[in-house]
Amino acid sequence: MSMKDQGIVVRNIERADPQVVKGLAACGVATVHEAQGRIGLLASYMRPIYYGPGIAATAVTISAPPCDNWMIHVAVEQVQAGDILVLAPTSPSDAGYFGDLLATSVRARGGVGLVIDAGVRDIRTLTEMQFPVWSKAVFAQGTVKETLGSVNIPIVCAGAAIHPGDVIVADDDGVCVVRREDAAEVLKKAEARVANEESKRARLAAGELGLDIYDMRGKLAAKGLKYV
Amino acid sequence: MSMKDQGIVVRNIERADPQVVKGLAACGVATVHEAQGRIGLLASYMRPIYYGPGIAATAVTISAPPCDNWMIHVAVEQVQAGDILVLAPTSPSDAGYFGDLLATSVRARGGVGLVIDAGVRDIRTLTEMQFPVWSKAVFAQGTVKETLGSVNIPIVCAGAAIHPGDVIVADDDGVCVVRREDAAEVLKKAEARVANEESKRARLAAGELGLDIYDMRGKLAAKGLKYV
Amino acid sequence: MSMKDQGIVVRNIERADPQVVKGLAACGVATVHEAQGRIGLLASYMRPIYYGPGIAATAVTISAPPCDNWMIHVAVEQVQAGDILVLAPTSPSDAGYFGDLLATSVRARGGVGLVIDAGVRDIRTLTEMQFPVWSKAVFAQGTVKETLGSVNIPIVCAGAAIHPGDVIVADDDGVCVVRREDAAEVLKKAEARVANEESKRARLAAGELGLDIYDMRGKLAAKGLKYV
Amino acid sequence: MSMKDQGIVVRNIERADPQVVKGLAACGVATVHEAQGRIGLLASYMRPIYYGPGIAATAVTISAPPCDNWMIHVAVEQVQAGDILVLAPTSPSDAGYFGDLLATSVRARGGVGLVIDAGVRDIRTLTEMQFPVWSKAVFAQGTVKETLGSVNIPIVCAGAAIHPGDVIVADDDGVCVVRREDAAEVLKKAEARVANEESKRARLAAGELGLDIYDMRGKLAAKGLKYV
Amino acid sequence: MSMKDQGIVVRNIERADPQVVKGLAACGVATVHEAQGRIGLLASYMRPIYYGPGIAATAVTISAPPCDNWMIHVAVEQVQAGDILVLAPTSPSDAGYFGDLLATSVRARGGVGLVIDAGVRDIRTLTEMQFPVWSKAVFAQGTVKETLGSVNIPIVCAGAAIHPGDVIVADDDGVCVVRREDAAEVLKKAEARVANEESKRARLAAGELGLDIYDMRGKLAAKGLKYV
Amino acid sequence: MSMKDQGIVVRNIERADPQVVKGLAACGVATVHEAQGRIGLLASYMRPIYYGPGIAATAVTISAPPCDNWMIHVAVEQVQAGDILVLAPTSPSDAGYFGDLLATSVRARGGVGLVIDAGVRDIRTLTEMQFPVWSKAVFAQGTVKETLGSVNIPIVCAGAAIHPGDVIVADDDGVCVVRREDAAEVLKKAEARVANEESKRARLAAGELGLDIYDMRGKLAAKGLKYV
Repeated sequence: MSMKDQGIVVRNIERADPQVVKGLAACGVATVHEAQGRIGLLASYMRPIYYGPGIAATAVTISAPPCDNWMIHVAVEQVQAGDILVLAPTSPSDAGYFGDLLATSVRARGGVGLVIDAGVRDIRTLTEMQFPVWSKAVFAQGTVKETLGSVNIPIVCAGAAIHPGDVIVADDDGVCVVRREDAAEVLKKAEARVANEESKRARLAAGELGLDIYDMRGKLAAKGLKYV
Repeated sequence: MSMKDQGIVVRNIERADPQVVKGLAACGVATVHEAQGRIGLLASYMRPIYYGPGIAATAVTISAPPCDNWMIHVAVEQVQAGDILVLAPTSPSDAGYFGDLLATSVRARGGVGLVIDAGVRDIRTLTEMQFPVWSKAVFAQGTVKETLGSVNIPIVCAGAAIHPGDVIVADDDGVCVVRREDAAEVLKKAEARVANEESKRARLAAGELGLDIYDMRGKLAAKGLKYV
Repeated sequence: MSMKDQGIVVRNIERADPQVVKGLAACGVATVHEAQGRIGLLASYMRPIYYGPGIAATAVTISAPPCDNWMIHVAVEQVQAGDILVLAPTSPSDAGYFGDLLATSVRARGGVGLVIDAGVRDIRTLTEMQFPVWSKAVFAQGTVKETLGSVNIPIVCAGAAIHPGDVIVADDDGVCVVRREDAAEVLKKAEARVANEESKRARLAAGELGLDIYDMRGKLAAKGLKYV
Repeated sequence: MSMKDQGIVVRNIERADPQVVKGLAACGVATVHEAQGRIGLLASYMRPIYYGPGIAATAVTISAPPCDNWMIHVAVEQVQAGDILVLAPTSPSDAGYFGDLLATSVRARGGVGLVIDAGVRDIRTLTEMQFPVWSKAVFAQGTVKETLGSVNIPIVCAGAAIHPGDVIVADDDGVCVVRREDAAEVLKKAEARVANEESKRARLAAGELGLDIYDMRGKLAAKGLKYV
Repeated sequence: MSMKDQGIVVRNIERADPQVVKGLAACGVATVHEAQGRIGLLASYMRPIYYGPGIAATAVTISAPPCDNWMIHVAVEQVQAGDILVLAPTSPSDAGYFGDLLATSVRARGGVGLVIDAGVRDIRTLTEMQFPVWSKAVFAQGTVKETLGSVNIPIVCAGAAIHPGDVIVADDDGVCVVRREDAAEVLKKAEARVANEESKRARLAAGELGLDIYDMRGKLAAKGLKYV
Repeated sequence: MSMKDQGIVVRNIERADPQVVKGLAACGVATVHEAQGRIGLLASYMRPIYYGPGIAATAVTISAPPCDNWMIHVAVEQVQAGDILVLAPTSPSDAGYFGDLLATSVRARGGVGLVIDAGVRDIRTLTEMQFPVWSKAVFAQGTVKETLGSVNIPIVCAGAAIHPGDVIVADDDGVCVVRREDAAEVLKKAEARVANEESKRARLAAGELGLDIYDMRGKLAAKGLKYV
């Protein structure tokens, strides 16, 4: 984050192509992460509040003070159809920044979910609404509205750098970010992996071994593996 | 805890008014916590063993040695209808102090659940019984019955001070304690919040922004928020 | 682990008696752990990816480098009907070593699950397959295939020493290992506990107190417990 | 904490007897904790910023919002000679609430240190000043001055209930609280322990075994210990 | 990180002005962090292996696979006088990537230290060499040299985005990054803070209260603080 | 651990050769760990209570109940010159099992230190005595003497399997176990590494690069590393 990125709201951001976003949702986090060279994952402590089908969406980013959710209200106004809010606190916090009222508001703007490196609450209602959230914590702890943050600036969320308009892919395995400018190429590679996996699955189900399918025996022997 | 509070069982405790307890259950943890001024939450690592409807109940407190569940047997005799056991170990432990046999016994006395800053086991049976537990850990590790603790003394459980007879409100968002003497006033404030939230939800669902509903734009500008 | 146990695959291991394994599955982790004298539990951070009926199975052990799942492919060839893979990384890792393709392969060999002191991914598909996994993390993070480990050597997994052929008992409460040579005796003791618990449950459900059933009052008084 | 305890500063508190406080300092944390029956310890993550001689002091308590150190300025005015500030945030935080300027101010009022269930900074200067601090974290993260908390109300700090005027004993082993009303009796018991330990140390140094000094062999045999 | 940033070494990077870097070192982490608006801190778990005078240096960044230190050897060739290595693993690891031999090599090139979101070893020799390291862990665990990473690409290290050539300021309070393009302005603000703090320190040492120096009493009363 | 290994004290154990033990101490943990193929490390959370010269010693193992230090008294009787106590609790605990009185007793028997996957206290006195301890925690929390454990059975301590008589090597980098039967061979390999490192250090100090000394450029290019 630069010094200039404080107390600002960037209104016009470029978003990834919706068709590409849709395609990435179908591939899932593990495949997308592999397809782009094993980068872009958020930390493994980011967990969904309920298990369900995965999503992909374009990021509206929020840099928020610890235990202060004022900027979420500011960010909601910037949400367009197909967006997901992505919030990083400027100091670690597990407070519950977000609940069912904010989810109602995000959904009314066309937003599809939340990724937050902090806490969320009202998860029973959020689950009934089927409003997906990936968070570090579930915690009823409330927040204040006292200090400015920023909206739609580059942030670091759960260890991953995220720019506004990037693609967020999230499912039961976790959350992955794909840079907007990489998205089309990543989709192509991810779809190739999906196709390839299907044929592998059939062979493995039939009892063939990965050792043979992937031709590993020679390389293992060369490294010195001994059977005793 | 005072030096005097060791190795004792307090038999007669005052309990919060059952009607107030019932009302607080309906409001839920997040609302109750806000209503009493954002105090009283137990740490966010306290999680339910299954998701379900929230409860409220009056605390029978247990101060127990690490990995020693003897005092739970003592405490069960003190349980009355509408009570919940609240256990804090005197040194951190994730051992499984409590399982389905103890739950059967608590329920037979009219008890409605358990909050434990340690571990619980037999969670499959507990879930089938729909006996709610909020705990720090799920762990099959057994305990001994060797050392005394105390029942119905003031304790600190998961970071919150709890007195016997206080109201415990617990749901999927976590656990909150309301002091017995505050309970009626907190209920009044919580119910007011619930009513207020309903009207807000309708406006937000219709697409109105929190920025406008809560009249935040002027204050944001005064703090220096810039749109770019 | 000894210096000799590196880069080797042990092909012939003795496995616990399948009838004993089946009996232990029926007893469950908490009972088995008590029956063998409160030993053998893996750490409480080992959690199932979905809740369900417990299992017991014979261990095929894997010592794997951090973030390198090559040895799982090697281990699958050693899997027989009724086996479970048990993996310990040689340095802490939460990477996703295992997904649905490997599960398909394990199942094709008759394997029944995975215990891994690291991460797992594709958990939605694994859940649909009803392929049980107990792991330290769920994480989409991929792994490489570069460095040798070993298969069917003694390992330490989540704090417990495990030998190939030992019985792994796992359910919603966690994971427990029973040494192959102890299994028959542990089963006998566990079944005795189950029988005993049934009679206790009925008495507790009828309102009798553990204080009386287990005759604790005298011992408590002798230790100095005071009722006030 | 009660609902009434918010946004207030209690000016007149009773403090423990300075002579008793001094005596407790000489006994050290481990001895004092034993003497009062193994209660009163703060969590083990509370560590000193530098190792040194232990202290004892009377608590001026602070309940502060997360990442907001405004109340420390308020509390400093309440500090008298021999006091120590004890701060608990209302939501977990590792922000650096306190640095060398505040330490200068506390010392100017006669205060002798800080116990904080959060972060501290400027530790190089604090160490040069020999101003002792026990904290959860060392972190340069700054705080704001926006939201009220309270001074000299009962708090829970690092898992221990602390009242204003209680004695805080702190050394390289951690931090212990002694209730003001228990302090004289605890001191008596602690000093008896110190005397007793001296004679034990000499016998142990001479090669006598604790097994014999404490006459444990019979009890061990009775419990079933076997030598093989 | 972009897909393009894999398996590459960027040889020519722009570095911050050495005079500015030197100035920032003198200000220290807490002051620099405040001066740039409370941004740029690495996580509080990043601790020095020994306490000592702070430093500032220009970042040579390394993105490395988990438990694989091959890229450090590649990075050393890119080190110039006044640089510091900054390493982020692509999956969490506490392995000891770095020891005294690598430190000898870095120093021979003019490098002044290491910041690593993983482990370090040989800390006794590193301390004797007075080669400063800030790390997540101290751990003797070795690493392999099997998989490529990248050098001098943008990374996320301990939660902070870092670009090659940025200024790293590190001392006993932790580690802070200043963007190369912000460095001169941050220095100006930091030096102003230092000057201001000196005058404050004198007044506080003389017993004046922050409440009065910062004129807080009115604002506190307006917020509703009550003295009782 | 087997069912048979409960409530027993093994009096006669074979210990590693004292000359080999002495040699391993001189090599240090990182070198020994590399020499035996990167195995045997205890978890990185095991830290010394003070920094100092490393040691090596033969293990007298203790399996102890949580928060119960009775077995340490039993173990002291089994200590011979050159031994180190190695304690693993049967359930996680950070209680302070060990203090200066026990250290006095261990030293009187010729014992040289303690490795404990739990807590230690009286660290100021232990440091003055220069009695080295590696522990998971420093904590004044006391323990009881109520439940049996075992002495000189195989244990798992901080993730590593340890047999009585094995060599424990410990220094500022952590703790490593060498199996008694491997010790002589490991020492030979470790000493070879030390010799080799000396020559490398001189070349690196002279400015030669690891890239050239270890001839890495070709392999890096083959893997596809690109300089841009």
